[in-house]
Amino acid sequence: MSATASRPDPFRPAKRVAGQRQDVWSIVNEAAAASPVQPIVNMGQGFFGYNPPKFALDAAKDALDRVECNQYSPTKGRPRLRQAIADAYSPFFGKKINPETEVSITTGANEGMLSAFMGFIEDGDEVIIFEPFFDQYISNIEMPGGTIRYVPLHPPKDGATKTSPASEWTINFEELEGAMNSKTKMIYIRHNPVGKVFSREELERIGELCIKYNLIILSDEVYDRLFYVPYTRIATLSPELYERTLTVGSAGKAFYATGWRVGYLIGPEHLIKYVAGAHTRICYSSVSPLQEAAAVAFEQAEEEGFWDESRTDMKGKIERFCEVFDELGIPYSDPEGGYFVLVNMASVKLPADYPFPPHVASRPRDFKLCWFLIQEVGVAAIPPTEFYTDANTHIAEDYLRFAVCKNDDVLETAKERLRGLKKYIAQ
Amino acid sequence: MSATASRPDPFRPAKRVAGQRQDVWSIVNEAAAASPVQPIVNMGQGFFGYNPPKFALDAAKDALDRVECNQYSPTKGRPRLRQAIADAYSPFFGKKINPETEVSITTGANEGMLSAFMGFIEDGDEVIIFEPFFDQYISNIEMPGGTIRYVPLHPPKDGATKTSPASEWTINFEELEGAMNSKTKMIYIRHNPVGKVFSREELERIGELCIKYNLIILSDEVYDRLFYVPYTRIATLSPELYERTLTVGSAGKAFYATGWRVGYLIGPEHLIKYVAGAHTRICYSSVSPLQEAAAVAFEQAEEEGFWDESRTDMKGKIERFCEVFDELGIPYSDPEGGYFVLVNMASVKLPADYPFPPHVASRPRDFKLCWFLIQEVGVAAIPPTEFYTDANTHIAEDYLRFAVCKNDDVLETAKERLRGLKKYIAQ
Repeated sequence: MSATASRPDPFRPAKRVAGQRQDVWSIVNEAAAASPVQPIVNMGQGFFGYNPPKFALDAAKDALDRVECNQYSPTKGRPRLRQAIADAYSPFFGKKINPETEVSITTGANEGMLSAFMGFIEDGDEVIIFEPFFDQYISNIEMPGGTIRYVPLHPPKDGATKTSPASEWTINFEELEGAMNSKTKMIYIRHNPVGKVFSREELERIGELCIKYNLIILSDEVYDRLFYVPYTRIATLSPELYERTLTVGSAGKAFYATGWRVGYLIGPEHLIKYVAGAHTRICYSSVSPLQEAAAVAFEQAEEEGFWDESRTDMKGKIERFCEVFDELGIPYSDPEGGYFVLVNMASVKLPADYPFPPHVASRPRDFKLCWFLIQEVGVAAIPPTEFYTDANTHIAEDYLRFAVCKNDDVLETAKERLRGLKKYIAQ
Repeated sequence: MSATASRPDPFRPAKRVAGQRQDVWSIVNEAAAASPVQPIVNMGQGFFGYNPPKFALDAAKDALDRVECNQYSPTKGRPRLRQAIADAYSPFFGKKINPETEVSITTGANEGMLSAFMGFIEDGDEVIIFEPFFDQYISNIEMPGGTIRYVPLHPPKDGATKTSPASEWTINFEELEGAMNSKTKMIYIRHNPVGKVFSREELERIGELCIKYNLIILSDEVYDRLFYVPYTRIATLSPELYERTLTVGSAGKAFYATGWRVGYLIGPEHLIKYVAGAHTRICYSSVSPLQEAAAVAFEQAEEEGFWDESRTDMKGKIERFCEVFDELGIPYSDPEGGYFVLVNMASVKLPADYPFPPHVASRPRDFKLCWFLIQEVGVAAIPPTEFYTDANTHIAEDYLRFAVCKNDDVLETAKERLRGLKKYIAQ
């Protein structure tokens, strides 16, 4: 018998990884590295341009000196971190969160989402997500066999001509209910990247539909410490909603340490236990010394005044950066939370004969705007149509997304460079 | 329409996590915590009882002071770590390993294995693993849809009466080839937990079969710095084998830091690219400051004399600990690598009327031995039948597995306690 004849390519990858279209992060980072303007100001990916606060760094260094903090943590996470999270969130949730059964630690929020999908999604189950979406979660839903139903957020009608609050990105509730059926198992809610913070009324209406269709809610609240309007947590709206909601948080986002990979989920025991089970099968356990550091950081943040300071600082960065668009008359969605600004560049005229490379020329206008800014201005931003299905790219093709979580001098350099756009703006 | 009628349990977990039989680690840890002998000496799980070397800890603390080391790493891992691993392994591989294309960093070796299976296994593909296996990898193969074919390692015939080198656990190559067919896609090779280091001849014969059946080889070499007999890497036996082998390593195992979650895979570009693709979809990126620390540790380990010292230390711990079994006339498999000792307790008579709890009474004899030692002696070890399919539990039911990666005073306490077994040994 010839064992080889039946398999011409023994190294054939699984379909889930075979179609590796270059992702937007690589396109932007590679273009940025090759720009004639160096050093480029990279406002693409949402990493911080500065360090975590000293009390968090000190806690990490202390943890490194303790034997047990360098070894495996329990799969559900270090007890001190689960306790610190339960203590920090119990007041928000208006109930005593049980650190043993209602909190689970994951390797960043990202692996937390995957654990939630792996814990509940099987072949044929459907998951609803809003556009724009974070590209990573598409594969996280498809890996366990899920099918995605997309529901777009609609931009402000006058977004091309007028700056408006991010709240003006709206849900069409008929579209949302139209995407639900008996196969729908979960809905994924995320405020980013449009800077919108869902209002209490919106969350109540989403919640009603989730009860009607019996869905599990995965509420991505990794920016829950950065909000500039009243902030509502869907899990807290009623006991019925708590029973079906997994709230995801991120110590990395909270403490300016996206490389620490410490995420967490809060929810009822009957959901958390399967998230923890999936997490155990995916990563076994998460990074120990930085879990311990995150525990200490959560314990100390309030008394350090960190939460207020961090919110004030970030709001200040948004205002500082957006001045340049006000000057230029370029409208944007004023963020209600997080650190991304969505800017509408409909008025920026790209030269008709500009030599875009083929992998950019073939993409929507926002990719061309992105490339043009990198080459001519020296500022990198993210083209948001990457976060839309093909049918809906028209919604976002005039926008670019800027991350403002950078030092103020970097923001000033970016502004100075962006002033160079003036000559391309149609008067 | 009643959306709810068709789904009675909206919170039904996915099958992959639904059957949560209590795992052996929890059984042992919970029994240990409840033992009347306290503090218990826990030689169950393979975490270290001491800290990483100073040069690694110093590197971690330095990394925490650098902004970029606290933010997202590239998904394939920090360039400095990939370079350090390429430099450290190129001499072993007898070729220059390309850090850009032939190395990928993962969140511990565990998520590295999952990434390999996710990268190549689809519904219906078969994977061969040896018994005893590490329980975690069963779910890692089943998650992407793989089917497992088990091939037992056979213990020494006189294992109940005579101490012998772990090399006497042997492969029946007819059984191995009998498990291969046109659906076999991968084979997973791991030296643990029997302490065996596969010989060059064994690896050559495995390699021949893998070429004949066109398999990808996943070679788990997380203990590759701890060997007490000549150590062969299957990837280095021929260019044909390199082309089909993914070698997995662990900075956590190498530097006494199982909680750091820094693993790595080395292999040809056509395999590594899909491992990296799967890893990106699972964890996005791995912990940054500890990747940087691992890079520095790999750069400095040789000149620090760390590799030699670590091997000598661990061999010393094995010898120190095994003295008590020599005294008692209890035979064991003398490890050729790693830090686990498999001890044959066939001669230990358990009292006929001993009150084992139901969840122990219903399991094979090694679980009863484990429980008995925890209760009566105050030493915890792992019952290895957990790592066998039901058909093969008879192979291991007289054994217990002890992890010796503990401080010498802890080993001495364990020995003193184990001397208490004397009165239970049939003369």
